[in-house]
Amino acid sequence: MADNHSLENLVQALRRLPGVGVKSAQRMAFHLLQHDREGAQLLAGALQAAVSEVRHCALCHTFTEDEVCATCRDPRRDRSQLCVVETPADQAAMERTGAYKGLYFVLMGKLSPLDGVGPRDIGLDKLFDRVDDPAAEVPVREVILATNFTAEGETTAHVIAQALKDRGLQVTRLARGVPVGSELEYVDLGTIAHALVDRR
Amino acid sequence: MADNHSLENLVQALRRLPGVGVKSAQRMAFHLLQHDREGAQLLAGALQAAVSEVRHCALCHTFTEDEVCATCRDPRRDRSQLCVVETPADQAAMERTGAYKGLYFVLMGKLSPLDGVGPRDIGLDKLFDRVDDPAAEVPVREVILATNFTAEGETTAHVIAQALKDRGLQVTRLARGVPVGSELEYVDLGTIAHALVDRR
Ligand SMILES: [Zn+2]
Ligand SMILES: [Zn+2]
Repeated sequence: MADNHSLENLVQALRRLPGVGVKSAQRMAFHLLQHDREGAQLLAGALQAAVSEVRHCALCHTFTEDEVCATCRDPRRDRSQLCVVETPADQAAMERTGAYKGLYFVLMGKLSPLDGVGPRDIGLDKLFDRVDDPAAEVPVREVILATNFTAEGETTAHVIAQALKDRGLQVTRLARGVPVGSELEYVDLGTIAHALVDRR
Repeated sequence: MADNHSLENLVQALRRLPGVGVKSAQRMAFHLLQHDREGAQLLAGALQAAVSEVRHCALCHTFTEDEVCATCRDPRRDRSQLCVVETPADQAAMERTGAYKGLYFVLMGKLSPLDGVGPRDIGLDKLFDRVDDPAAEVPVREVILATNFTAEGETTAHVIAQALKDRGLQVTRLARGVPVGSELEYVDLGTIAHALVDRR
């Protein structure tokens, strides 16, 4: 394929997707070029649009196309409660339970010292600024820690809990109705809803 | 994510990649937007370039950016031999053995009646035109069938063999040194080289 630089470049670019090795990347490139060029163009356009439009909510840090996301703007949400989750997918899982009406803080990651992910990388300074804000109309009264029940998620919850308790805030954790070792995103809704009611 | 159309569109577009379900697509979108926006832009550009630059070689049907690919243009190749493979990845596996010096015909697929893939979809009309060409400088003397040793690959080889033998051509098949049921792309080079020598 010495005369085929754009195919080689495509295979290399596809390898930047998580979980995609060289064989998968070749299969993806082959599939798109042989059977779905329309899909390749759609994907190119979607990538460009997402990179230019998607940013982080100024309040909760999740992905949004606005300065402040729709959830944070919603006047019906209880602003005295703040639920801390690792990712937008975890937030979506919480929302699907219908059991939570407060606001969120989305870490967009988890503490992982071995991978070089420290407190600033998951926005803990912003989280602390937010709960400390003396100008807030409704002060945050309770922070619910809904990080995953994995080793890194538990560590993250522990670090945040210590810092917030030092500030005199009520800090709760989802009850262990959620199976230990599992990731929130894959847990059934009833279990999450139950764990929310039983938070401690 | 009601206010997040470009993120939703990106997840949908990623699902058009083979083997990517909704959870993988969400993880890919999250990874690109959170950790690798440069990769997202690279991928978008690579997709655009590949779609506009990559076409099929007029002679062997493989992907190329030229009218005729570098292999078909190479004056050192033996033009009396034609090796039929399913995909460019299979052709690349043959090339890596260094044991073959003829030309190729790349089907870009295999016969698969259940999926609606018939002879025209894998370019058999073009293959037959090529071996029949009375104006060819060097006529094709031997066709080596190197489709995969799967059920569909064997059927494809059988159909091509019948049609070519009716034309009085010498038709050979890679020897069964290649393990039955396996795909050429994943077979070690020594086995492929041995099977090429032992073709029958
Ligand atoms: Zn927000
Ligand atoms: Zn060619």
